Amino acid sequence: MSSTFRTTGLAVGVLALSAGAAFGQDAAAPEAAEAVEYALASDTAYIFNTLLFLIGGFLVMFMAAGFAMLEAGMVRSKNVSMQCLKNISLYSIAGLMFWIVGYNLMYSGVDGGYFGTPSPKMIEPVGGSDLGAGYSGASDWFFQMVFCAATASIVSGTLAERIKLWPFLIFTAILTGILYPITGSWEWGAGWLDGMGFSDFAGSTLVHSVGGWAALSGAILLGARIGKYGPNGQVHPMPGSSIPLATLGTFILWLGWFGFNGASQLAMGTISDVTDISRIFVNTNLAACGGVVTAVILTQIIYKKVDVTMALNGALAGLVSITAEPLAPGIFTSIIIGSVGGAIVVFAVPMLDKMKIDDVVGAIPVHLLAGIWGTMIVPLSNSDATYSVQFIGVAAIGVFTFVASGIVWAILKATIGLRPSEEEETMGMDKAEVGVEAYPEFGQGSQRL
Amino acid sequence: MSSTFRTTGLAVGVLALSAGAAFGQDAAAPEAAEAVEYALASDTAYIFNTLLFLIGGFLVMFMAAGFAMLEAGMVRSKNVSMQCLKNISLYSIAGLMFWIVGYNLMYSGVDGGYFGTPSPKMIEPVGGSDLGAGYSGASDWFFQMVFCAATASIVSGTLAERIKLWPFLIFTAILTGILYPITGSWEWGAGWLDGMGFSDFAGSTLVHSVGGWAALSGAILLGARIGKYGPNGQVHPMPGSSIPLATLGTFILWLGWFGFNGASQLAMGTISDVTDISRIFVNTNLAACGGVVTAVILTQIIYKKVDVTMALNGALAGLVSITAEPLAPGIFTSIIIGSVGGAIVVFAVPMLDKMKIDDVVGAIPVHLLAGIWGTMIVPLSNSDATYSVQFIGVAAIGVFTFVASGIVWAILKATIGLRPSEEEETMGMDKAEVGVEAYPEFGQGSQRL
Amino acid sequence: MSSTFRTTGLAVGVLALSAGAAFGQDAAAPEAAEAVEYALASDTAYIFNTLLFLIGGFLVMFMAAGFAMLEAGMVRSKNVSMQCLKNISLYSIAGLMFWIVGYNLMYSGVDGGYFGTPSPKMIEPVGGSDLGAGYSGASDWFFQMVFCAATASIVSGTLAERIKLWPFLIFTAILTGILYPITGSWEWGAGWLDGMGFSDFAGSTLVHSVGGWAALSGAILLGARIGKYGPNGQVHPMPGSSIPLATLGTFILWLGWFGFNGASQLAMGTISDVTDISRIFVNTNLAACGGVVTAVILTQIIYKKVDVTMALNGALAGLVSITAEPLAPGIFTSIIIGSVGGAIVVFAVPMLDKMKIDDVVGAIPVHLLAGIWGTMIVPLSNSDATYSVQFIGVAAIGVFTFVASGIVWAILKATIGLRPSEEEETMGMDKAEVGVEAYPEFGQGSQRL
Repeated sequence: MSSTFRTTGLAVGVLALSAGAAFGQDAAAPEAAEAVEYALASDTAYIFNTLLFLIGGFLVMFMAAGFAMLEAGMVRSKNVSMQCLKNISLYSIAGLMFWIVGYNLMYSGVDGGYFGTPSPKMIEPVGGSDLGAGYSGASDWFFQMVFCAATASIVSGTLAERIKLWPFLIFTAILTGILYPITGSWEWGAGWLDGMGFSDFAGSTLVHSVGGWAALSGAILLGARIGKYGPNGQVHPMPGSSIPLATLGTFILWLGWFGFNGASQLAMGTISDVTDISRIFVNTNLAACGGVVTAVILTQIIYKKVDVTMALNGALAGLVSITAEPLAPGIFTSIIIGSVGGAIVVFAVPMLDKMKIDDVVGAIPVHLLAGIWGTMIVPLSNSDATYSVQFIGVAAIGVFTFVASGIVWAILKATIGLRPSEEEETMGMDKAEVGVEAYPEFGQGSQRL
Repeated sequence: MSSTFRTTGLAVGVLALSAGAAFGQDAAAPEAAEAVEYALASDTAYIFNTLLFLIGGFLVMFMAAGFAMLEAGMVRSKNVSMQCLKNISLYSIAGLMFWIVGYNLMYSGVDGGYFGTPSPKMIEPVGGSDLGAGYSGASDWFFQMVFCAATASIVSGTLAERIKLWPFLIFTAILTGILYPITGSWEWGAGWLDGMGFSDFAGSTLVHSVGGWAALSGAILLGARIGKYGPNGQVHPMPGSSIPLATLGTFILWLGWFGFNGASQLAMGTISDVTDISRIFVNTNLAACGGVVTAVILTQIIYKKVDVTMALNGALAGLVSITAEPLAPGIFTSIIIGSVGGAIVVFAVPMLDKMKIDDVVGAIPVHLLAGIWGTMIVPLSNSDATYSVQFIGVAAIGVFTFVASGIVWAILKATIGLRPSEEEETMGMDKAEVGVEAYPEFGQGSQRL
Repeated sequence: MSSTFRTTGLAVGVLALSAGAAFGQDAAAPEAAEAVEYALASDTAYIFNTLLFLIGGFLVMFMAAGFAMLEAGMVRSKNVSMQCLKNISLYSIAGLMFWIVGYNLMYSGVDGGYFGTPSPKMIEPVGGSDLGAGYSGASDWFFQMVFCAATASIVSGTLAERIKLWPFLIFTAILTGILYPITGSWEWGAGWLDGMGFSDFAGSTLVHSVGGWAALSGAILLGARIGKYGPNGQVHPMPGSSIPLATLGTFILWLGWFGFNGASQLAMGTISDVTDISRIFVNTNLAACGGVVTAVILTQIIYKKVDVTMALNGALAGLVSITAEPLAPGIFTSIIIGSVGGAIVVFAVPMLDKMKIDDVVGAIPVHLLAGIWGTMIVPLSNSDATYSVQFIGVAAIGVFTFVASGIVWAILKATIGLRPSEEEETMGMDKAEVGVEAYPEFGQGSQRL
């Protein structure tokens, strides 16, 4: 009997958590508190909530493999080892930086302001049995960390084949330890943007656009790959070395997105929460389906062939588009949101080429443009969001990330330099910096392209 | 205290669910109701049940990647991009069709009949907190949808390398939106076959044989790949382009099968259910082990070499074989059932070649023949099933799917045509229809084969 | 009401389980019993505990794919099919052997002794609803089986490219059915080592070192690949055929490790347990991050290039290092433990080459040496462990496994022989024994190396 009483006494703490959950990773949502039903013993809810972070976390962690395969498949064989190296390194650096400084900079003591406290994240002691916030802080750190790592992965793809290893890794450390946490704090850390009512459930802007802006500023400072653009505006295709690896990467990312969006509900200890997570699964999946089908149909109409890389990026753009609000829209609306994402990719990829912005994997259309689209369309289905505040959020985070990233890239360029020598780039980064060819027995990339 | 009382009052609804669960995805099993023990608060059971669908769902979703890799590895390099494109497209089309029409056609208002109601599936509103059926309807849709997509994946493998993209995608839409849901409704939708006592726990027949029959009818109408069979009955091997990708695909499918069979228990909110799921995991895994070892030993004896593709297909055949009844058999019986599946593959693959039925990945032996075997052997371990009713189910679903698929294929052949021109097929589908080569730097498929 | 009473009555059984859990897979830890808090109804705890084994189990099962891809990527293309075949076969054999004899040999009736009862494992009947040990025995078998399979995977990598299929498979059967269970029984089966207070949470020694010792004894008896070492001590690099597959394998292993270490908590039905699991996720992840970053920095300093294979093995070594004690250390300590693991790899790989021990994938540094390191450093963070007992455990298990494996290898060598003919080895195992080339269209391994 005493167990029942204790449980009842502690229910209030979990109640607050559940209430916030209905608004995804956004911090404050007091107006929803009344609507939430509380039923489970707090202990059970704590376990469910923590389990959600752990499952969601390992799914998003696996997206690191997805990005690695997508990029390994989309670059030429002479740069594949480098891309593998960058992806495992950036995931590792993100983990370390988000522990040392990032998490608390993003979540601790922001209080409506512009950043939190740069200090290492503490987790529960062994055998910790404090109900606390209604979930394990360690599980929460793990879940948020993998989002941070995903942001850095986006940059890696755009800048592939022509950036040296170390400046990229240094940038990664700054992005994951400082830049991403700062803009993240504005919204998910209950900072000023959250106070205004900005809405970004799982990170169309906070994760995907931030990665996209950082990539864009890097791409501009870095310039295009040698030979990509001819003197008279010609675009020379540099096809990726392995379409099946790119396809695998896309499927892994799609799988990971169920954790990305689903676990951004942040709670699973009530019927409402788990039902909402289910709804998010459905919307997320069908938005991606819409993105694929739209890209397939459009490329058939425009090019008379169906470009598989557009289908893959269509899936990803659909996923990015629905990420800002995967819960509120109905199914049909979700499909439309994802489909527009797919269309954005089809039209933006050649547009970027016209602007001579060399984006090796199409990350800017997929993550930046579809991320903006997804964020701006939130008010269509979520009446708590407004177009004006959504625009302010998109613009503020965009300007900050683009400028701050640009400064970091510029400093790196002026000091250790960003690009390999022309000879090294032509030879491929694998021979130049990694010393290990990706396909020593059948790759002839350096001779062929 | 009030929470405890409400819970007790609602327990009956979940009781019914749990009872059905002991019979897998089969709808009606009233005789089991007495045996089920009910213990948890309904809210907790609801969360566990829904979580089972979500976890099972993402595992089966990932099987789309498994099929894609298996097929990408088993086709020649000149058709790999096409295979990737088909797989991501079919998964997307399946999702859309199963929402627009398929789910309700399969599950809504079948009432012992031959099909349900063709209408879009509705899911819970945001914050839905109705205990309802004891799980979230959205999670159930997601879980059932990925089964539907798996069915279409089977077809894709058999018909690879010689079917144009669009007729394949149109067939996929009809299969996933109409054909699969109709036969599915007969059993899992509580239709006439279920009323007779047919038993197919997770879909040896409803998913795997259906995919196999649709593939077989297509393979017959489509004919073999150019050069596959010589004028005097010679069989020219056309080895796949990447054994490691095929291996990866097999392992991903194996992983997904824990969701496929395990979550087909349909409930996890009681000790009985989660214990049964554990039993299913063990039986499923060991049936696959039996399939592998049998295929390895048989190919060593017959061919004096151990064909790795037979080992992979042995695993899959073992998995398909146990899928009709992964719960009732003991471990030893499960191993035998899976081993026979492995043997079927070893003998059926050359048999199909003798019949000049060109099955690129071996999907007909794996999914159709092992699916029939698995379904027919159910009565050995499950006394609620009879051999005669199992035969009626296998035959009825087989005839319907084979004929209906054949009609669709025939119409497509007569209208837009199924096959590319001889020149296009020789060149490879990647150049002909996708415009993106899978391995532009080291693939020389078109020159070599 | 009666449900509540029954629950209370059964709580004691689960209490014992939870208590043991705080010591990972180690069997006896009575002194911790007082510290454990019990809150949930036993039924709910049973479901959570079982679910932990199922989720952890499928994650570790997927490590079979990780090992397969890692090894497929690290061997030359002429041996890739063989490596795929070995990996799916060994996983299958491990499953069968660990059911027939292994599990009970390891866990049943050890009672402080040297081995248990060699008999098939029994699992619960259909609909089993006995609270029993607080989790489903079938789920426990599944979880422990995948550990056994992982052990055999380690051997496969070291001995690649020069061992015939059948002696390898026979060794696998003995390792997974007899050798691994015997040493496992000493600790996790509550045998003599556990009685002394040896501590190995998730298997740095019991799994990874055991695999490493078995691999080492095989490598010595087998000798190096033809051409690997020149007459004057030259080392001829034999680069792997696909770095992206090796990278994918590493990421899959990293993913699986959350199940490997996290679910080795063995219980998830209390706040303490799930919080500890979260702590384990964080420590495990950051130890791997430390391993990667250390390997990257060290290879940059030593070789002026960053060897991606060292980064991958650095991740794995970090993971192996933290496996003996992923719960007790603080985050910073975990990073250091993993970093030392990364350093071990960088220095040990060339050292082994100097000793002319040919370890194709670096499994001996990663699994054996980092496993020893991880086990020996446990007392730093876990005061229940002592350096002397840790040393006794490492040495006893090492001597037993090295000697017993050596005897098995020697018998196999003297009877059916271990190595293919020189001609077969030069031609590659794929043509010699599998009959299926991994990359028939672009692999030219036999001509090139």
